Amino acid sequence: MDKNHPRTGDMAPEEFRQYGYKVVDWITEYLMHVEEYPVLSQVSPGDIKSKIPTQPPQKGENMADMIRDLDEIIMPGITHWNHPNFMAYFNSTASAPGILAEMFSAALNVNGMLWKTSPAVTELEDVTLDWFRQMLGFPKDFWGIIYDTASVSSMHAIAAAREQAVEFNFRQKGMAGRGEVPRLRLYCTEHSHSSIDKGALAMGIGMEGIRKIPVDGQFRMIPEALQNAIEEDRGNGWYPFCVVATVGTTSSTSIDPVDAIGDICNKENIWLHVDGAYGGVAAVLPEMRTIFKGIEKADSVVVNPHKWMFTPIDLSVFFTQKPEVLKRAFSLVAEYLKTGEGSSVQNYMDYGIQLGRRFRSLKLWFIIRYFGVEGIQNRIKEHLNLAKWLKEEMAASPDFELMAPVPFSVVCFRFHPDPVKDVQRVDELNEKLMNNINATGELFLSHTKLNNQLVLRVAISGIRTERHHVEKAWKLIRQKSQELL
Amino acid sequence: MDKNHPRTGDMAPEEFRQYGYKVVDWITEYLMHVEEYPVLSQVSPGDIKSKIPTQPPQKGENMADMIRDLDEIIMPGITHWNHPNFMAYFNSTASAPGILAEMFSAALNVNGMLWKTSPAVTELEDVTLDWFRQMLGFPKDFWGIIYDTASVSSMHAIAAAREQAVEFNFRQKGMAGRGEVPRLRLYCTEHSHSSIDKGALAMGIGMEGIRKIPVDGQFRMIPEALQNAIEEDRGNGWYPFCVVATVGTTSSTSIDPVDAIGDICNKENIWLHVDGAYGGVAAVLPEMRTIFKGIEKADSVVVNPHKWMFTPIDLSVFFTQKPEVLKRAFSLVAEYLKTGEGSSVQNYMDYGIQLGRRFRSLKLWFIIRYFGVEGIQNRIKEHLNLAKWLKEEMAASPDFELMAPVPFSVVCFRFHPDPVKDVQRVDELNEKLMNNINATGELFLSHTKLNNQLVLRVAISGIRTERHHVEKAWKLIRQKSQELL
Repeated sequence: MDKNHPRTGDMAPEEFRQYGYKVVDWITEYLMHVEEYPVLSQVSPGDIKSKIPTQPPQKGENMADMIRDLDEIIMPGITHWNHPNFMAYFNSTASAPGILAEMFSAALNVNGMLWKTSPAVTELEDVTLDWFRQMLGFPKDFWGIIYDTASVSSMHAIAAAREQAVEFNFRQKGMAGRGEVPRLRLYCTEHSHSSIDKGALAMGIGMEGIRKIPVDGQFRMIPEALQNAIEEDRGNGWYPFCVVATVGTTSSTSIDPVDAIGDICNKENIWLHVDGAYGGVAAVLPEMRTIFKGIEKADSVVVNPHKWMFTPIDLSVFFTQKPEVLKRAFSLVAEYLKTGEGSSVQNYMDYGIQLGRRFRSLKLWFIIRYFGVEGIQNRIKEHLNLAKWLKEEMAASPDFELMAPVPFSVVCFRFHPDPVKDVQRVDELNEKLMNNINATGELFLSHTKLNNQLVLRVAISGIRTERHHVEKAWKLIRQKSQELL
Repeated sequence: MDKNHPRTGDMAPEEFRQYGYKVVDWITEYLMHVEEYPVLSQVSPGDIKSKIPTQPPQKGENMADMIRDLDEIIMPGITHWNHPNFMAYFNSTASAPGILAEMFSAALNVNGMLWKTSPAVTELEDVTLDWFRQMLGFPKDFWGIIYDTASVSSMHAIAAAREQAVEFNFRQKGMAGRGEVPRLRLYCTEHSHSSIDKGALAMGIGMEGIRKIPVDGQFRMIPEALQNAIEEDRGNGWYPFCVVATVGTTSSTSIDPVDAIGDICNKENIWLHVDGAYGGVAAVLPEMRTIFKGIEKADSVVVNPHKWMFTPIDLSVFFTQKPEVLKRAFSLVAEYLKTGEGSSVQNYMDYGIQLGRRFRSLKLWFIIRYFGVEGIQNRIKEHLNLAKWLKEEMAASPDFELMAPVPFSVVCFRFHPDPVKDVQRVDELNEKLMNNINATGELFLSHTKLNNQLVLRVAISGIRTERHHVEKAWKLIRQKSQELL
């Protein structure tokens, strides 16, 4: 192959096969040796950029050169989400069946905007989401759709909640400049994910339209406080339109009491959205279903297989009992998108902002089938056990304190050696501890703030995370903390 | 491997390699034989769903069984966007380097929400978007970000336009229930894509807040009509905040005069967003750069490599001269997302609704490098030539009429045999013609309406579409039209 030959058509199939094998070999080696990379990339800002030409090549280049550059330039700048000691944020790991499904999806390259533009995309999404609904123990009338991210799922929930206030006819008349309509209020807590605030801002609710309800000592929304806030706001001319409860908050994985919140929302006729993006997956275990107690009172819920169910990013599942409200908010069928099937088919484009839709259900199908419900349950159960083990280790260690309950697989803690009493000094110690740990490349932790104190988090949810990885993490945490003294 | 063995860990690496090779072989065969499939899936509603169990498997299944089911159940329900005779909508074809890059992205499975969470994702996005900017001839100060779809890109443009009206402080106070602020108006034409309307609805603008500006005989926005509308609206208390011009409309690929519209927007201090999702890619040809004349007056523009630049779905590029306004609209940094790099790095999560971000720039990098700028230019030029050829064939044929100019690679036409004078009868004939053609599986066309008449569209933009495919399409169109008489 001439390196400088300008290409017009696609790569020849046999060349694709040759490089396809190479990429499969590369991925196989990567998955076998992922633990040998530093978890957190150790490059400095600008390092990667400085190695890439500032202008695009005029002539076509060799695939082999590109793979070499991936190894030499890109790989040092990768933070390895697949590493079993990636324990920051919420993990997201790619399982092999998920990767294989993504290969098919990339090659088929279909857009499932309409049933017609690939009936299998629409129908497989329909079936796999019903599988997933059953796995989580959700009621039969939860209708599902796949979006890219939980941010987008929750934004759609807020849009549907706004649309439910039909009396204001926002769809027709818009929101601004209308003194005859009230200001809108959405309720969540300071522990709700930032995407709820972002979604509310996008939907024109404004920061003042977001009311943070107080939480109890375990960072859970206090239903009575919600009830009081709603009444107070109604008295002051606000229009309460949406409540977001979280099952597994980002900071501490606390669980808002959906059941009690649902009673209030149903009585007050307010849309209840439940954000179970991370924690929701735990409901595949029957003994964990209590996390969603009262879910039948919710209008919508989001659970992300790309967080704790070994699915390559992105795949967020949104369920709602009111798809017709969502459809009213987003359905707009241009002439060029009209098809002849009428109401005999479902066109997912009617239920969202995005017209283009990748074939995402294929990876969900592959993952559920390859592991089976039991395989997924076993893995989740093991993560819960590992977190329990780490929690108990920390509880038994005088230099550490647990900063939140551990209902899922995230442990929130602080290094707090006895002599250090100054609160700010403890914060500094823990920040230094985190940075020193992350700089080793052996483990990647992240932090948050709880009760205004800096807290470190260990999230255990990677498919390749085994007991010895958690033991190694705990050993490193102890070792690095001792070095600080 | 025991078929019924419950799995807890991931697939063994050697099993991944084995099936990875199989999938590569599958894709190779698929790319070689894609023309042998019917372009448009020929299944009926429910056909696919009826073949899939209604409950998820409890035990893990074999990968081989899943690939067999993909062949037997899924493939009949695929409409082949990669087929060289997929000429409906705007095509989207997956090139081999794009597929290979998607394999790497799926395996690495990183989330580029923060610089830190994979510096290479942020820095490669930065570099490749600057390459793409240069390829399109856009000014230096166009800053870029990758979103999933043009719908989301344009929604962000509308959000930034709304944020630019800082005097109303929508970010803080929200939009509803505020009689002291004016109603907002967005301007586009009836030929703008439906995603503009959807984005405006999502942003709380409402249908009445969308004013469709009249078009000329070639379906292009009339700048004087825009100027008059803005003045009239201001006089009536509206607040004009956003204009959307389209370079390559969906129905007819008409080109709104960006230069003249830009003058009006700059003078009136209104955000100008340019939707070049499909047509914009043509600007890689220097002789086509006139389509974007005046682009330096625009605040933002969207161009989709996943439409006409051989990139597997999804990858939409959004450029703006005012990233700080976009950031003000969307930046919200939760404690758990704070990192130590400060302003020395760019965190793309600050510029959008989505926190989760796949490693999309990798495919753009691979595609630009593999084909080179010249390779991409040659392919685009060939598509323009093929469309010109088809246009001339139709112009010379007494039974057909061209319904719009052909500035890009889409030909809008009608079968209009001389004896048929009744307008409705011509619509029916053409609808039947389209359905008959699509039912053959040899070619997939779509329709639109122009001047209230049903019009058929041939879009030529697949990487595997050669002259003989266009000749075949034209032959089939003539043959099926003759059969109708």
